[in-house]
Amino acid sequence: MSDGPIAAGENILVYADERATYLHVYRPGGRFECHHGAVDMPEALYWGDVLETMKGVPLAILRPSHAEVLTLLKRRTTVVYPKEAGRILLEMGVRSGGRYGEVGSGSGAMTSILAWMTGPEGRIYSRERVENHFDQACKNIERFGVSDRVDLELRDVARQGWGVDGLDAVFVDVPEPWSIVPAALDALDSGGIWVSLSPTVDQIVRTERALFQAGFARRTMLELFERKWKLFPGRTRPGDRMIGHTAFLLTARRVGDMGFVRREQTRRKRR
Amino acid sequence: MSDGPIAAGENILVYADERATYLHVYRPGGRFECHHGAVDMPEALYWGDVLETMKGVPLAILRPSHAEVLTLLKRRTTVVYPKEAGRILLEMGVRSGGRYGEVGSGSGAMTSILAWMTGPEGRIYSRERVENHFDQACKNIERFGVSDRVDLELRDVARQGWGVDGLDAVFVDVPEPWSIVPAALDALDSGGIWVSLSPTVDQIVRTERALFQAGFARRTMLELFERKWKLFPGRTRPGDRMIGHTAFLLTARRVGDMGFVRREQTRRKRR
Amino acid sequence: MSDGPIAAGENILVYADERATYLHVYRPGGRFECHHGAVDMPEALYWGDVLETMKGVPLAILRPSHAEVLTLLKRRTTVVYPKEAGRILLEMGVRSGGRYGEVGSGSGAMTSILAWMTGPEGRIYSRERVENHFDQACKNIERFGVSDRVDLELRDVARQGWGVDGLDAVFVDVPEPWSIVPAALDALDSGGIWVSLSPTVDQIVRTERALFQAGFARRTMLELFERKWKLFPGRTRPGDRMIGHTAFLLTARRVGDMGFVRREQTRRKRR
Amino acid sequence: MSDGPIAAGENILVYADERATYLHVYRPGGRFECHHGAVDMPEALYWGDVLETMKGVPLAILRPSHAEVLTLLKRRTTVVYPKEAGRILLEMGVRSGGRYGEVGSGSGAMTSILAWMTGPEGRIYSRERVENHFDQACKNIERFGVSDRVDLELRDVARQGWGVDGLDAVFVDVPEPWSIVPAALDALDSGGIWVSLSPTVDQIVRTERALFQAGFARRTMLELFERKWKLFPGRTRPGDRMIGHTAFLLTARRVGDMGFVRREQTRRKRR
Repeated sequence: MSDGPIAAGENILVYADERATYLHVYRPGGRFECHHGAVDMPEALYWGDVLETMKGVPLAILRPSHAEVLTLLKRRTTVVYPKEAGRILLEMGVRSGGRYGEVGSGSGAMTSILAWMTGPEGRIYSRERVENHFDQACKNIERFGVSDRVDLELRDVARQGWGVDGLDAVFVDVPEPWSIVPAALDALDSGGIWVSLSPTVDQIVRTERALFQAGFARRTMLELFERKWKLFPGRTRPGDRMIGHTAFLLTARRVGDMGFVRREQTRRKRR
Repeated sequence: MSDGPIAAGENILVYADERATYLHVYRPGGRFECHHGAVDMPEALYWGDVLETMKGVPLAILRPSHAEVLTLLKRRTTVVYPKEAGRILLEMGVRSGGRYGEVGSGSGAMTSILAWMTGPEGRIYSRERVENHFDQACKNIERFGVSDRVDLELRDVARQGWGVDGLDAVFVDVPEPWSIVPAALDALDSGGIWVSLSPTVDQIVRTERALFQAGFARRTMLELFERKWKLFPGRTRPGDRMIGHTAFLLTARRVGDMGFVRREQTRRKRR
Repeated sequence: MSDGPIAAGENILVYADERATYLHVYRPGGRFECHHGAVDMPEALYWGDVLETMKGVPLAILRPSHAEVLTLLKRRTTVVYPKEAGRILLEMGVRSGGRYGEVGSGSGAMTSILAWMTGPEGRIYSRERVENHFDQACKNIERFGVSDRVDLELRDVARQGWGVDGLDAVFVDVPEPWSIVPAALDALDSGGIWVSLSPTVDQIVRTERALFQAGFARRTMLELFERKWKLFPGRTRPGDRMIGHTAFLLTARRVGDMGFVRREQTRRKRR
Repeated sequence: MSDGPIAAGENILVYADERATYLHVYRPGGRFECHHGAVDMPEALYWGDVLETMKGVPLAILRPSHAEVLTLLKRRTTVVYPKEAGRILLEMGVRSGGRYGEVGSGSGAMTSILAWMTGPEGRIYSRERVENHFDQACKNIERFGVSDRVDLELRDVARQGWGVDGLDAVFVDVPEPWSIVPAALDALDSGGIWVSLSPTVDQIVRTERALFQAGFARRTMLELFERKWKLFPGRTRPGDRMIGHTAFLLTARRVGDMGFVRREQTRRKRR
């Protein structure tokens, strides 16, 4: 975003090749080490610079994309995969200046991406009830320089609610998403958007029931697949392996008019 | 984002059910019509309100998500599908305050989403060489209230370049993406991100070659699939139909150090 | 299989192009009509012959593959799709001379393919409880010339059993496959193979429970996707549309030793 | 197929659980060993029997399905996956008594399945030009007891042709399938079916061109995906991993009338 040197403390992607890609915090004069050898970080570093390790392997210094942050961030919890993350942002309709809820905070990776997108005028209300994860999220949010845009609380949303209202959308990534529905009903602005992520069909079915009963409309379940390809001249082909499954997405809209929601359901059944 | 009434001229989603969902511009006192009947728009309208048509069908008024804007916007050109759109934003690493390039502008839908995310501090440099599309994009960008954040030009990027530099990332959606590579090399900040979208394998192969020769690293091709599910109690099942293909995604990083890019290629080949 | 002329009454594929492909019974001197025009069938016809319609459109005469029989056979019931059919044959381990069970007979298409593969030494015990479908299956089995290899009965297997035993494998395609489990336990040879097909997750879950309780081991659920590609020089790309879902496959093995099956289940859970 | 004991020399599946499944040749009094411990094979063994290893782990004795033969057969070459194998049989229209060609023989697994399906009246003309693979295929075809139905030759089909004609269908699984087209044109009966398997897009494109030029009609490219599911009560979900790609399938029909084939191509282009 500027042509000046990279600031100390900034997150950089150190990239040798597909199998050797690292998310690193830049410290002028600090040392970076990987299996390709070590390199001392120069006093002035620019995006796109190529450094050479002591073993003679070149490393490119790149600004991490959101997809790379999700893939590379060290974490104690499972993470939202790029496959789903982009779609979640799209379904939430994330805008600069918006107010969004998240539960749980997990590694803080998704929290940070939301914060980068909503900017200094926006706010992310992220809740986590597991202390280990909370600490991890705190550190990462700090690391990514978005603490001022994130309201992070160690809080059990199912029992204590979100502690905020008028949210544009919420992102729910907990093992029992149905338990979050009442809190979301309170926290979401009228017409607000629910997006949740669950690995099993049973979780989705139970959450969808809870959303219906709470008057959420337009309940939609979808899943995404991603396949990488191999790009060698004259031998173009898909990659051998694929992730078979991470989670299903469930989206819904807070309407709160049960008459509307019941009639929507009736029309759906006719098909 | 506020609890007040919806402003005149704002974009609303008028939703009856999955098959009757409309993107509409709110005019107090104006009339909305669909096959479920007509309804007069009230003087004061709030997100989540439910109106009833003269045929007695209830319609919910919702804030459109980005996915809905992409799906519903009337357009003269092909559109970026939600399936890919979220991933594009994630790969571009879109942040509030960022500077991004787009070519072509198409319907202006993706331009608007980029602008909503980068906010008033950011800027989208969108270029379109087809006059019809340019006019369409102009109208939609105005409609979505983001004209002040978008620098939109009727311009042939392949011949005339982007007319700007220091961009964080570019999104390229034209039939001959390889022709845009030289302009992207000039316009992107060092370390900047290339994301392009092409329906055929041949386009991807040719663009990847052009990116390699221009010194772009980390060239990656992927494709995404999306499947909707049907959520009826006791009969949960995937939907019968799926989009088989829209386009492949190609991402790359401007490094510009040919020595680095050639050695990356050599390591790739060994696998 | 012979170079002689096609016999009267034989099934032929009349092929103009992908959108105009017909399964037809050859009658020398008979007339074939489609939207490309009519053609009189010659007295002597050979595989691979090209006839011309009165509108001047050439039609190739081909021996139908099993995939084409499944796709083109006129039917009153839903049909097994090629996507699953091949895998079913593979999982059943179909061999010339084998003895297989089927319920329901449906259109008789899958019955005929099983009969073509097991040959005159083998036998297919196909059961159907809906009279309409039974009549349809009868006609098609006769049409395909395999009546002598098929034991077809109008019979409710859930209530009356299969009426046969020592089967190598059974293929179950009914709305309530769990109701067939006791009959399959009796009809299958020890170690015999169960393959069933169900559109919803709930049907699979319930059937799997019934199979477990009846002592079936190696219960496996899978789904298959198929994508056609477009092959135009310089524009190779996947097709726009895909079938999103037809049915899940469930396979299992009759072991009957509950101790074994319970210990298998325990080992599975540990993962 | 019979209720009698398993014959010495017969292929059995020794099954403990999904991760411990073995294809084994039964020898009365012989010893079977795996990481669950050893077991001495009894003098009389029946399908579905459960044996116990010295470590107390029960093993079920099952008749291997074709899918299991493909997955478990030790091999020196890459193998046709179940994902594609069933569809290949379906597209070839394999029948008891039919005459089919195969190149290359590979491990002999697909050859044996073809031979099981065509029975003693049918014949498989399988060709392999690599001596190692030929030896391997010989052994496996013998092992599976189908030598009398298979005409196996160490032969370079591209140079020397198939050495047979009037085939119903051929299955081609070699790195340069386009080189086999002239031989297939000679070997196939008029109207006969070509099925080939290739991992890269480039191989498919080149083979399709060769087939077009040789007068093959109805050239169709497709790919298949398979996803296993996890079946635990209350936690039903797809498996985490999937095979991303093995190979594309290309099917075509020998017509030999270039006028027909060119007009088919023209109609295709219009779409």
